[in-house]
Amino acid sequence: MNSEEITNWLKELQKDICKQLEIADGTQNFVTETWERKEGGGGITKVIKEGSVIEKGGVNFSAVYGVAPDFLFKEKEHSISEGVFEKPSFFATGVSIVIHPESPMVPIIHMNIRYFEMSNGVKWLGGGIDLTPHYVNKEDAMFFHTELKKVCDKHSKNYYSEFKKWADDYFFINHRNETRGIGGIFFDRLNSNNEMTFEQNLAFWKDVGSAFAPIYTELIKRNKTKSYTSENKKWQLLRRGRYVEFNLVYDKGTKFGLETNGRIESILMSLPKFASWEYNFIPEPNSNEQNTLNLLTKGINWVD
Amino acid sequence: MNSEEITNWLKELQKDICKQLEIADGTQNFVTETWERKEGGGGITKVIKEGSVIEKGGVNFSAVYGVAPDFLFKEKEHSISEGVFEKPSFFATGVSIVIHPESPMVPIIHMNIRYFEMSNGVKWLGGGIDLTPHYVNKEDAMFFHTELKKVCDKHSKNYYSEFKKWADDYFFINHRNETRGIGGIFFDRLNSNNEMTFEQNLAFWKDVGSAFAPIYTELIKRNKTKSYTSENKKWQLLRRGRYVEFNLVYDKGTKFGLETNGRIESILMSLPKFASWEYNFIPEPNSNEQNTLNLLTKGINWVD
Repeated sequence: MNSEEITNWLKELQKDICKQLEIADGTQNFVTETWERKEGGGGITKVIKEGSVIEKGGVNFSAVYGVAPDFLFKEKEHSISEGVFEKPSFFATGVSIVIHPESPMVPIIHMNIRYFEMSNGVKWLGGGIDLTPHYVNKEDAMFFHTELKKVCDKHSKNYYSEFKKWADDYFFINHRNETRGIGGIFFDRLNSNNEMTFEQNLAFWKDVGSAFAPIYTELIKRNKTKSYTSENKKWQLLRRGRYVEFNLVYDKGTKFGLETNGRIESILMSLPKFASWEYNFIPEPNSNEQNTLNLLTKGINWVD
Repeated sequence: MNSEEITNWLKELQKDICKQLEIADGTQNFVTETWERKEGGGGITKVIKEGSVIEKGGVNFSAVYGVAPDFLFKEKEHSISEGVFEKPSFFATGVSIVIHPESPMVPIIHMNIRYFEMSNGVKWLGGGIDLTPHYVNKEDAMFFHTELKKVCDKHSKNYYSEFKKWADDYFFINHRNETRGIGGIFFDRLNSNNEMTFEQNLAFWKDVGSAFAPIYTELIKRNKTKSYTSENKKWQLLRRGRYVEFNLVYDKGTKFGLETNGRIESILMSLPKFASWEYNFIPEPNSNEQNTLNLLTKGINWVD
């Protein structure tokens, strides 16, 4: 696949995911906005709000290009034209998703897959899916990780353990000493390696994107009718506060977007409709809240 | 005044401000927690919540010491003992305040004054007060800036214009291209200069701290009984979302605290009880909300 084919595949993926999420929500549809980037390219932002399941969610496609930022290449990689260093141009495309459900019993989910190439021939794939349950439910966590492991195992025996660890390390709120949720998989700068060609990694990457909708709609189905209390709702808003902390303090995509004059509304569509902070909130011992906190730690094995 | 006298003065200031805020609130009192810092020193955190005026607020005192972080001194400034560079020790003390009122008609306020010294003789004063009205009211904005100008003018003819500009530049949400609120004054690394000795700057600095309570309690008195709608409340939560963005993305004190293993609950007491984000929210033309946005810009002259 060339970059145009990858771009078109991502656009179709965006449409398909939105369709699946609309069916799972049952009441609201996505609203579409297209936008252009002054320096080159643009995107299609699709947002949904106040659905019966999804309180606020976004599925964002973008494809941008221009002169590559300096930190992405070494001078010796430049093409030289008449003695002058010519900076390579870049092309980047991807789909990013964050879904904040109304019910504290339904988990928050995030997915991103991205493709990057430069005119100097460098190219890579990146991506990840991670789950942030307001209350960690072991069966759901095992289902989630087992499904991701299946996607990985289809392509490489090493990828699940490698990318699960990468997600544990990446989705970590250092100042709270807790993981954002139960992790998932995360990978970056995949091209080819000892066992996989670029095309084989591309097939893996596409499977990650395609796995999102069936996994999340299953988690919605399992949890959307569960009853909850105002205490559950209060806890949900506190957990969303942590989500905001992660995204604004650590998330590389968010930081990159804020620093490079990206489209703010598309970048910050990841933030929840409502979040809350309470000074020094400490859950009751052995409560569901405390049990969830106990599981927000790296290195838990969620598969057999 | 030596560092011990400054520390004691700050502790008294903290007590006095809390007393004034309790009177202004009318129903709730501050709850006190003392904490120790493993590497040296500690603090007294005072928080108030769910008052009739103040929904969530904190007045934090700290006095910490230890080996100075590398970026704070040059090697040539080190004392040398038997050929070995000895890093200077530091002592830092200050009071930090953020108050989030229940009513959208009462502004959010922030104040911080801090004193820093090192064993190599380097010492300085820093501080600031800034106001973040959910709705900018010109009379209140003029009152606020005029009071700050009086404090400055008592000590130096240059300080108000200089430190007002510094606040405009500092309390700026770059990715939104808007100021956090209507600014105020901000200054850092004050020691002595052409016109002022350290002791004279210390007198100015103390006046800034002492000005906080009378200014903010007056603003509470003016606005606390104003009625408001659910639309006003919705806007307040969106503005608080911006406050969260500023504090987590830009605020130097917050970033320093998160990166240096500070006491998280004291650092993040600045975050509101509730905040909200809405995709691409655009106020009606000529609405009070739009008029406020129009005034969230640098360089407005709020005094005659």
